[in-house]
Amino acid sequence: MKINALIADDASQPLKAGQVELRDMQADDVKIEILYCGVCHSDLHMARNEWGVSRYPLVPGHEIVGRIVETGESVANFNTGDIVGVGVMVDSCGNCHFCQQQEEQYCAEGFTPTYNGTDKYTGGTTFGGYAQHVVADHRFVVSIPDNLPLNAVAPLLCAGVTVWSPLRHFNVKAGDRVGVIGLGGLGHMAVKLASALGAEVTLFTTSPNKGEDALRLGAKRVVVSRDAEQMAACQTSLDIILDCVAAPHDLDPYLATLKTNGHLVLVGIPDQPHPSPNVTPMVFRRLSITGTSIGSIRETQEMLDFCGQHNITADVEMIKGDETEAAFARMLKSDVKYRFVIDMQKTHW
Amino acid sequence: MKINALIADDASQPLKAGQVELRDMQADDVKIEILYCGVCHSDLHMARNEWGVSRYPLVPGHEIVGRIVETGESVANFNTGDIVGVGVMVDSCGNCHFCQQQEEQYCAEGFTPTYNGTDKYTGGTTFGGYAQHVVADHRFVVSIPDNLPLNAVAPLLCAGVTVWSPLRHFNVKAGDRVGVIGLGGLGHMAVKLASALGAEVTLFTTSPNKGEDALRLGAKRVVVSRDAEQMAACQTSLDIILDCVAAPHDLDPYLATLKTNGHLVLVGIPDQPHPSPNVTPMVFRRLSITGTSIGSIRETQEMLDFCGQHNITADVEMIKGDETEAAFARMLKSDVKYRFVIDMQKTHW
Ligand SMILES: [Zn+2]
Ligand SMILES: [Zn+2]
Ligand SMILES: [Zn+2]
Ligand SMILES: [Zn+2]
Repeated sequence: MKINALIADDASQPLKAGQVELRDMQADDVKIEILYCGVCHSDLHMARNEWGVSRYPLVPGHEIVGRIVETGESVANFNTGDIVGVGVMVDSCGNCHFCQQQEEQYCAEGFTPTYNGTDKYTGGTTFGGYAQHVVADHRFVVSIPDNLPLNAVAPLLCAGVTVWSPLRHFNVKAGDRVGVIGLGGLGHMAVKLASALGAEVTLFTTSPNKGEDALRLGAKRVVVSRDAEQMAACQTSLDIILDCVAAPHDLDPYLATLKTNGHLVLVGIPDQPHPSPNVTPMVFRRLSITGTSIGSIRETQEMLDFCGQHNITADVEMIKGDETEAAFARMLKSDVKYRFVIDMQKTHW
Repeated sequence: MKINALIADDASQPLKAGQVELRDMQADDVKIEILYCGVCHSDLHMARNEWGVSRYPLVPGHEIVGRIVETGESVANFNTGDIVGVGVMVDSCGNCHFCQQQEEQYCAEGFTPTYNGTDKYTGGTTFGGYAQHVVADHRFVVSIPDNLPLNAVAPLLCAGVTVWSPLRHFNVKAGDRVGVIGLGGLGHMAVKLASALGAEVTLFTTSPNKGEDALRLGAKRVVVSRDAEQMAACQTSLDIILDCVAAPHDLDPYLATLKTNGHLVLVGIPDQPHPSPNVTPMVFRRLSITGTSIGSIRETQEMLDFCGQHNITADVEMIKGDETEAAFARMLKSDVKYRFVIDMQKTHW
């Protein structure tokens, strides 16, 4: 089937409206009319082929909220009209150890990304959420709680679950002291989710002017990371840190703020290596540096249900489809509070 | 009390026999006549002030096995004549979270090292096991199983527990796939202990000629780490790696051998940073790099009991006290299989 989408034709072209071909509906598929799609940093990297793996035409977008308009014959858990979400994955092998354990994000075969992946039925490319429709296996579709504003839910599908997964993996609970580095798309969700879990959140930022916002979002303490005195004041005080800054930076000052047995969790991949971390405090306080990649479908649903209970959504700035390039430009300057979301119904096709 | 010891008078002097003053016996103390003391790399670093913290006169040695010759009035769990061990610690605060949890190695106040520490009664320096006697609080003294050759037990007190602690912390069990980097004092104990736990051990070495020995010690597979083909053959095959090489080296080829959720455990501190590890596989396979420092008294006793049950000791080369400098020189060339142990009864005072 042909659908309308915002398409990058190559790395140097701006996105423009056009049409791409999705697979025909399969028995396990749902077809979703997209209402909102968040603008993730990956979308920009991929549109511009900055990771060298982009296949064109390319339709970005993996923070999708929409309404089901058609269900395949084997789909029993969703109905036409349901409001649902699709995140970073639309398929996985289903058979490996990780898929069996409902951790599809670590599928041994590699999960199928929502865009720029390989459609297992057609062998063609998967297309993302900067579009009027998407088709996905119902096992990779999640339900959206009905009390939340749908536009502000969209960023939960990638930014939200990417920080939720490590919070759960490391069993963050009430009273824990959680650090968050960087108040961007991921960081602002980490502050909201960790504090809703009852943790006492310290936000590290290079921008003193983000302090007020961080406190509003739930942080108990804001530390300007360039201020050695402020950093010294929180030595060995944290159980875990979610490092939401992908740009290369010195990890040592953050290791110093961890208690014995603490974890520094990297959710982003720098384009150049971070300076090499100092092993001494890692040995003497049994610290770990751990990476983590998005989250599973189970965790995504769990996070959405938690957000429904706690009335949590992302802070968003709404745009229309033809404003995406301008949004990319502002994102590059970290000039967004805290996620752009495309309103598909206000987009001209 | 005065005791005989091998003493470094400053960083440039060889060890020589002489006398140092230990504290008088306290109610909780035991006095031990030392039978054997292992020669740890730290001993050399400290004798030469290579870490810049040495206080002279200095008596190295923290792999001590001996016989109790006197007990303080509050000591109920040991008797004169008991064969016991002393490792890297001889005291800690006793009150902090970690001491309360029997993890004195992470004492918030810092544990008291067996040598070059501060004696809490006298304020003077603590002296180690290259000596005829040592005095220690009975809470930091462990029992030696009676079926093991005592000379070969000595290295368990530092090298043994340093690899035992992470094996236990990360719950290594039968069937797990464990990598060990480097077949030295620590590495050869890691191979023995991990394989006795039922794990399938892969030894990584730069020296192809160590392969036969590694298999004899319990390894199932030997991988020459400079051989890219051999390294490629064990991609994503291991649950955990104990990195027993303190010299700076590239961690990336080892990260590549870890399965999703795998741990690379650093037991040594390099004098220059390791090259910065690549974050990409850490994120995509949720890998961790974790430091670990020696082990607790509880873990030391547990490890010794385990060694008693499984007939495990270190592979040692015996020396007399006046051969220590020669042993240091050979150690620097990694020319030892796999630990020198000083026979105190054959040492002239
Ligand atoms: Zn994303
Ligand atoms: Zn799979
Ligand atoms: Zn040692
Ligand atoms: Zn303590």
